[in-house]
Amino acid sequence: MAEESNPPVPPAGDNAAAAEAAGPSKKAAKKAEAKAKKEALKAQRAAERIAVAATSNEPEEDPAKDFYGAATPALLASFPAGAEYVHLKDINESHLGKTVVIRAWLQNTRMQGAKMAFVELREEGNWAIQGIVSATADNKAEDGKPVISKRMVKWVGAVNPESFVTVEATVEKPFAPVKSCRVSDFELHITKLYVIAAAPATLGMTLAAANRAVTNFSDEEAKPEEAAQEKEAEGGPPAASMLTHLDNIVMHKRSPVQQAIADIRVEVKHLFRSYLREHGFKEFEPPCLIGAASEGGANVFSMPYFNQKAYLAQSPQFYKQFEIAGGRKRVFSIGPVFRAENSNTPRHMTEFTGLDMEMEIQKDYHEVLSMLEGVLLHIFRGIEKNCAAEIELVRSVYPSPEILLPEPGKELRLTFAEAQKLLREEGPEEFRNVRDDEDMSTPQEKALGALVREKYKTDFFAVDKFPEAARPFYAKVDPASKPNEPVTNAFDMFLRGQEILSGGERIADPDELEARIRFKGVDPKSAGIKEYIQVFREAGVPPHGGGGIGLDRVVAWYLALPSVHLAAYYPRTPKRLLP
Amino acid sequence: MAEESNPPVPPAGDNAAAAEAAGPSKKAAKKAEAKAKKEALKAQRAAERIAVAATSNEPEEDPAKDFYGAATPALLASFPAGAEYVHLKDINESHLGKTVVIRAWLQNTRMQGAKMAFVELREEGNWAIQGIVSATADNKAEDGKPVISKRMVKWVGAVNPESFVTVEATVEKPFAPVKSCRVSDFELHITKLYVIAAAPATLGMTLAAANRAVTNFSDEEAKPEEAAQEKEAEGGPPAASMLTHLDNIVMHKRSPVQQAIADIRVEVKHLFRSYLREHGFKEFEPPCLIGAASEGGANVFSMPYFNQKAYLAQSPQFYKQFEIAGGRKRVFSIGPVFRAENSNTPRHMTEFTGLDMEMEIQKDYHEVLSMLEGVLLHIFRGIEKNCAAEIELVRSVYPSPEILLPEPGKELRLTFAEAQKLLREEGPEEFRNVRDDEDMSTPQEKALGALVREKYKTDFFAVDKFPEAARPFYAKVDPASKPNEPVTNAFDMFLRGQEILSGGERIADPDELEARIRFKGVDPKSAGIKEYIQVFREAGVPPHGGGGIGLDRVVAWYLALPSVHLAAYYPRTPKRLLP
Repeated sequence: MAEESNPPVPPAGDNAAAAEAAGPSKKAAKKAEAKAKKEALKAQRAAERIAVAATSNEPEEDPAKDFYGAATPALLASFPAGAEYVHLKDINESHLGKTVVIRAWLQNTRMQGAKMAFVELREEGNWAIQGIVSATADNKAEDGKPVISKRMVKWVGAVNPESFVTVEATVEKPFAPVKSCRVSDFELHITKLYVIAAAPATLGMTLAAANRAVTNFSDEEAKPEEAAQEKEAEGGPPAASMLTHLDNIVMHKRSPVQQAIADIRVEVKHLFRSYLREHGFKEFEPPCLIGAASEGGANVFSMPYFNQKAYLAQSPQFYKQFEIAGGRKRVFSIGPVFRAENSNTPRHMTEFTGLDMEMEIQKDYHEVLSMLEGVLLHIFRGIEKNCAAEIELVRSVYPSPEILLPEPGKELRLTFAEAQKLLREEGPEEFRNVRDDEDMSTPQEKALGALVREKYKTDFFAVDKFPEAARPFYAKVDPASKPNEPVTNAFDMFLRGQEILSGGERIADPDELEARIRFKGVDPKSAGIKEYIQVFREAGVPPHGGGGIGLDRVVAWYLALPSVHLAAYYPRTPKRLLP
Repeated sequence: MAEESNPPVPPAGDNAAAAEAAGPSKKAAKKAEAKAKKEALKAQRAAERIAVAATSNEPEEDPAKDFYGAATPALLASFPAGAEYVHLKDINESHLGKTVVIRAWLQNTRMQGAKMAFVELREEGNWAIQGIVSATADNKAEDGKPVISKRMVKWVGAVNPESFVTVEATVEKPFAPVKSCRVSDFELHITKLYVIAAAPATLGMTLAAANRAVTNFSDEEAKPEEAAQEKEAEGGPPAASMLTHLDNIVMHKRSPVQQAIADIRVEVKHLFRSYLREHGFKEFEPPCLIGAASEGGANVFSMPYFNQKAYLAQSPQFYKQFEIAGGRKRVFSIGPVFRAENSNTPRHMTEFTGLDMEMEIQKDYHEVLSMLEGVLLHIFRGIEKNCAAEIELVRSVYPSPEILLPEPGKELRLTFAEAQKLLREEGPEEFRNVRDDEDMSTPQEKALGALVREKYKTDFFAVDKFPEAARPFYAKVDPASKPNEPVTNAFDMFLRGQEILSGGERIADPDELEARIRFKGVDPKSAGIKEYIQVFREAGVPPHGGGGIGLDRVVAWYLALPSVHLAAYYPRTPKRLLP
């Protein structure tokens, strides 16, 4: 680490030039302008002072002076000259002995005496490589090779970690594989290093800390004693709370573990979309702004909207159905949904990404169930294959058991009644009396997940035929169910004992829908509901069903993360809207 | 058309059964339940009355009675038995003479005497086929073929248009190609037809009307005399206003022209995404809910958010940059953005879909410009190829000239100064004095588009180096520009004379950024801005740039639609949040 920091010269001269170049603007206040110039000038002078300080006590000419320093725009425009620009993940045997150029974050430096410095360069994710800069003996280069001065070595060794640099180097074999870097079979013998964007001398959170398991997910500020604990880790760099991570969003995101989670999230989304596209689904965009809080009461955000009130959609449910009514056979959407729920738990967010689909049913709503099972298993098997390295990396920080998936064709579907019976008969004492006509609680779901894993060797399964009382008004009641124990053609899917999907058949007949809405105690003439029912009266709507998946939860529970907030890019909680 | 409507029996009996099956619920009020039952019973009795009326004056047994009627769940579960289920778009020579089953909307019926009825069946988009149901002479079938009774023919001829039906038929060659249907080389000789979901006797808007050009995009109710004009069309079915379309969203969406626009929109999105993925971009989801109205002042929606205030994001700008700062080299996002602008024009919506990207710059921001040119041309050439039929269909309703695209490698890039010079020297009189340091107006953009099309034979081009005053505070000022005429490394792209993209290099250095923010008259300590600048101080951020495309506008202007509202699925305007 660059504690004895002699900070590299920031390219502040340019800033000043740019600020001056901006010149007069009719709109901008004279005052602001003057302030800006003063600021820029100050920065320029500070940079000049640093530059002078860096060289003043070594008066003699540095033969390597052009090989390091702050990168100027002119230098960047012509660099690399003659050398191949490579990505770290692409380096292979063919590069051995060749001169290459890379652009990367310098994540670590270590001086080895006065003549040699080791650096770690990270390009993206956890693709890092070791670099060595070694002073040429007596400043005399052999065979036209460039001279590396001790001053250059010292300068490189003092670059602040997480500065963005560009490097010219020859690719060599290290004496032994470099354990600390993913590119372990090669190292870079650095001949030039320029800082493109300097990091501060002290990071708000180091990369090592950012890459440790988050200690605390509370939205509250940690109490002083907890903050102290946060610093004291059992060996290794200190870990930090989620609040510290979010306050240092750049370092949070740069940590290899968050990069890996993000990559897995990208792949989950891609697999969802590509599977459905292959099965004839068409994407559409439901609106976020809606005119009525039609789907639920309390948990909806509302806002002034010109001369009326607008609400934020809690799901694309109605709009998916409108697409089916409007002549699309199979649709899906991927987008934000909002819940104004004051729940401060690791399972909740006020904004999350919904993966939703809806399809025409030909014979039976199990077509929908099969499609959703299919897409989820495609996702799970897909990331297992395509993101093996990322999953392993996440597990090194957040350990989790291997996930058990059913063999193809042996997917597990329990009815709700079967699941409750299993809980009653083989579950923990407290679930001896669970009923078939009441929804499951979160602890019940977890206990069921554990029982199923033990008994059926799978972490993924569906629970079908939920009781009528546990489902919303648009859920189709199974016409074959007993009149005094009505169940719906609706299901949930579970992963590691947590719900990740809700789906089922919807009511397509307007009279049946209106009757059910009334039965549920909702006024069919109320705002939003009236228009919803009307859609099914406009023209004949085919039988249909669908489901919704929470992207954040699928990623979080697949990886057994301690909080869904780690799977989101910018988690929104009742207390937090930043960054 | 089925004017002499003898409506098919709606499957109301099931509704009643389902409602009854629902049984007692602890929560639902007794009152609501009673009402629901009454409603369902009423519907059942009405259905029975219709059924009796349909058959009462023909007392003798109908030999075809099992071949038509309302589809029951039992029938649907076993249908088709032995026949191949086909999609209309897949029908080919191999099906000739074979019995197939389709599910489709019956879009039209026509009686030919008492013994024959023609129907048009549409499955999706504009995939329609002609069907014929023809009574068997003397009710005597030959060779074990099913008997078609006159009563069946009459019943089929009276099915309400836009009912959803399932049909068993043999595929035959028509005497002559059926001009009115896309599947023109085959016709269906119908042996069974069941109504799965009945349309009402009178549609709020017929399919033919829905498929005509919208007459009026005003958000206001049409005045009586305009409404009368709306009905009076110069031949053909009457056209309707956008308000009528939105009030009949199902028929609006079912119209082949809207289906085609939707298909093109799906493809634009897909091409954007697949091109960027191939070029190493990673998708991410920026938040919609943000803690400060940081990007602009007046045009932002705000709402109560627990103990604070939340705003809806006007663009993912800051978050794209956070991703770059957070270690992603290239990112893109597709999602909703919001503008609280009280603009009631065919170019504005309060919610639209943004296609956004951001990337690290290696040498020069023209890397960003090239990437965006590349993705847009990929989209335009892609839909030209993949959506030829859809584009042709849209043109048949909304005529537009062929779009002129540059040859590969000959993309047109004008500087802002060059564009203004062109306008001054060769443009309309009113633009003789346009200045190089003031932003372009919409009429200027249109005139420029016309000039460029004439002179350079392209409808797509970029205008680069916008003046400083015309760009937001995050735009990088070109360090090489004249101090008294500062221009930015920022550009727009135009299609048919309308802006579809804004992009450019962003300021990556925190001091330069702070100075510029101040210069623009914004307080760098204000909410949201402070946190934005801080991100660039957290660690070294590489030079980067990007751009944003309005999906709705790209679709609308490519197709030269009269309003962007036609390209959106559910257009949001200051006056309208429904459906």
